[in-house]
Amino acid sequence: MAKQQKMVDAITSMDEDFAKWYTDVCKKAELIEYTSVKGCMVIRPYGYAIWENIQRILDGMFKETGHENVCMPMFIPESLLQKEKDHVEGFAPECAWVTYGGSEKLEERLCVRPTSETLFCEHFKNVVHSHRDLPKLYNQWVSVVRWEKTTRPFLRSREFLWQEGHTLHATAEEAIEETERMLNVYTEFCQKYLAIPVVQGQKTESDKFAGAERTYCIEALMHDGKALQAGTSHYFGDGFARAFDIQFSNKENKLTYPHQTSWGMTTRLIGAIIMTHGDDNGLVLPPAVAPIQAMVIPIAQHKEGVLDKANELCDRLKKVCRAKIDDSDQSPGWKFAEYEMKGVPVRVEIGPKDIENNQCVVVTRHNREKTFVSLDNIEEVILEKLQEVNDGIYAAALENRERRTYVAKTLDDITKALEENGDGFVKAMWCGNEECEDKVKEITGVGSRCIPFEQENLSDTCVCCGKPAKTMLYWGKAY
Amino acid sequence: MAKQQKMVDAITSMDEDFAKWYTDVCKKAELIEYTSVKGCMVIRPYGYAIWENIQRILDGMFKETGHENVCMPMFIPESLLQKEKDHVEGFAPECAWVTYGGSEKLEERLCVRPTSETLFCEHFKNVVHSHRDLPKLYNQWVSVVRWEKTTRPFLRSREFLWQEGHTLHATAEEAIEETERMLNVYTEFCQKYLAIPVVQGQKTESDKFAGAERTYCIEALMHDGKALQAGTSHYFGDGFARAFDIQFSNKENKLTYPHQTSWGMTTRLIGAIIMTHGDDNGLVLPPAVAPIQAMVIPIAQHKEGVLDKANELCDRLKKVCRAKIDDSDQSPGWKFAEYEMKGVPVRVEIGPKDIENNQCVVVTRHNREKTFVSLDNIEEVILEKLQEVNDGIYAAALENRERRTYVAKTLDDITKALEENGDGFVKAMWCGNEECEDKVKEITGVGSRCIPFEQENLSDTCVCCGKPAKTMLYWGKAY
Repeated sequence: MAKQQKMVDAITSMDEDFAKWYTDVCKKAELIEYTSVKGCMVIRPYGYAIWENIQRILDGMFKETGHENVCMPMFIPESLLQKEKDHVEGFAPECAWVTYGGSEKLEERLCVRPTSETLFCEHFKNVVHSHRDLPKLYNQWVSVVRWEKTTRPFLRSREFLWQEGHTLHATAEEAIEETERMLNVYTEFCQKYLAIPVVQGQKTESDKFAGAERTYCIEALMHDGKALQAGTSHYFGDGFARAFDIQFSNKENKLTYPHQTSWGMTTRLIGAIIMTHGDDNGLVLPPAVAPIQAMVIPIAQHKEGVLDKANELCDRLKKVCRAKIDDSDQSPGWKFAEYEMKGVPVRVEIGPKDIENNQCVVVTRHNREKTFVSLDNIEEVILEKLQEVNDGIYAAALENRERRTYVAKTLDDITKALEENGDGFVKAMWCGNEECEDKVKEITGVGSRCIPFEQENLSDTCVCCGKPAKTMLYWGKAY
Repeated sequence: MAKQQKMVDAITSMDEDFAKWYTDVCKKAELIEYTSVKGCMVIRPYGYAIWENIQRILDGMFKETGHENVCMPMFIPESLLQKEKDHVEGFAPECAWVTYGGSEKLEERLCVRPTSETLFCEHFKNVVHSHRDLPKLYNQWVSVVRWEKTTRPFLRSREFLWQEGHTLHATAEEAIEETERMLNVYTEFCQKYLAIPVVQGQKTESDKFAGAERTYCIEALMHDGKALQAGTSHYFGDGFARAFDIQFSNKENKLTYPHQTSWGMTTRLIGAIIMTHGDDNGLVLPPAVAPIQAMVIPIAQHKEGVLDKANELCDRLKKVCRAKIDDSDQSPGWKFAEYEMKGVPVRVEIGPKDIENNQCVVVTRHNREKTFVSLDNIEEVILEKLQEVNDGIYAAALENRERRTYVAKTLDDITKALEENGDGFVKAMWCGNEECEDKVKEITGVGSRCIPFEQENLSDTCVCCGKPAKTMLYWGKAY
């Protein structure tokens, strides 16, 4: 009985404590639940349904671009992980190690994959012999493990779900093209389906993936002004191929090392959705990935004919979107709060008066705008409203990013901008020297996020050392 | 060049060496590749595409019956695994244990999930409080690890992919109903979509799942007369709920233990497909899960107009099924062998003469029957042919099972039947005593497979001890 009567508990407000607001949303929207293993969470049905929608759309985009799904083992023998020097240095410190199988100690310990380059390389060596075997365009949907010290749901967990693409090409040009193609796929996915604007760029040398020649990334700005890396795409050159001795006979029948890429997106995206679009009433979901796009709520449902009409309405909506009805005995007010918390993009209310007037009330989640809509063409209007939510949250996110993107020419500029306006992206010139990168972080607290593809010439000198600038960088505090 | 010219290598024949034939098919049809971790395999694109089709269909059936997908962590703390006594006894000996995170020894070791009852129980305890929270109808698609000594691709691997359903109910009746419902879902899936006939039954006490009150199963008979357990559905009573102290307040506001089920199907099903339908030319795939249902092969494709017409034909077929064209420069003979090896249900040949006659040649994989088909209504005919393949392989599998199902009244009968006709199912009466179960296996080599739901009264006495019989059992050698 307690449960039936309780109203949805309020959550901490964003301004008061953004971190607490975030975990409140994760829990109250029933996305996750903690477990007894630190850093490992249960993804509950509502959270997992978001991930399934992300998977479905991304997987379609991967297949459209010629990729095939495979499944590699979850274990990597230590000796295999060690074959590429930079790679093992980057990942070994955070591997979970299996040392026993049943009661027997293993001869060689196995790590639970933190990423699968080494496994794909071992496989490529087995199956690639001729130029006819190339390109190999593979992807897998699995979970990986990285033994992080501090953890947060979705953003940094010890186990997380992801997809990892791994491709092998005859030439460097083809591999670089692939690296860029997949970054563009990620960009389109974030902007079009998650309504999250992103900056495309390249990581600096010190920040690239362990073993990569180049790491491309997309960076998004969260509501609190912190940056979040939403996806990465790596070009490996032939470094892994050489380390794993993968060779193919080219068209001239000469043994050649192929060129490789990998790229990944993770359940972090759900964290990005929460922190980009959420508000003090809870989650706000982009319609493309929302498990429920329209929730029908009958008003005074005990009155004759209301439930029938509401069900009929829901059935009509189901034909054009993911619609659902809540005809439980909770009060309408409870239901409003509940589905606002869960970020359902559109709410549709229908009561006796509405039925009389052949109408219903449509409320869009992001701005809580109420519209009376004739039942005659409700399907059309719902689709328009879903588009409105999508466009509205994208515009708000873009506005937030623009408002929080600062230009700095000196270290003082950086400090001042952050102090006055709060966290955000800082655009500033850089000499290309790692020491300056470190010093900027030490003094101002913002690290380099990426060298954006869209360059601007803000000044001729490095924001840190005053020597000639090579490139413009985006700086920021990051999740 | 070597690769272009080679014909598809022949495989070992089934009669000569069934086990070798099986692994040959796994490799030559490009379903799997071995890795350096014993018992862990790469599932290659063609193999994984079969699994994706299995997933898609089964997942639809689960959602249709009200289930939601979730994702539990892959790690189980040792203390959590130990909470249910029978369960830990059954699984601990084959757990892979993580003992280090990075360079730090863990305070408590974690096993990589061999199955997730304990994790679901921990979660249920957190989220189930009232009868309003029930039932919980959950499923997850993950991989699990069991440290087996002897391993075989798909049939017994240390890591395998599966789905595991876990449900929690207010009453025993509801939970038992669920256990049966999911066994029926599995049965329908096997028979309708994989064209594999199965026997439904219950495992004997000694053979049930660790921690279960009852284990239901479906048993299939492979081409060599060995049995394969294709899916299991377990009823737990309230044993786990008591061990994990999961209670809910029922409608009378009284604290009550809920009743639980779990059920699973694995990548083993791919092994079952291979061994039920395959032949000496390779794989034969049930159309419902075949990655390619119709393969178009142009004949004399260098001749003008052939490729255009073949592509046009393929485009038409794509509208009604999963069709593909192979216009590579391999010879038609090579292609025939290649797609027979890969078990593509229907091959469509089209050459200059066919085009002249407005026809194509359709060959069904299972019986290699050739039909000349007018291009006018080729879509219709292809769908009929796919149905023909499905029905044909189901009938053949059923015929094989019936031919290899023997009735025995004495131990001698069993031995004789197996000697004379080869391995198969033996139907025989049983007193219900575990000692007799063991003795039958010791003397004749066949173990109890299940107590079939469809009982027959073959005699009044146990096949082993001659005492009054309780029930009829299916016996067999098993994968």
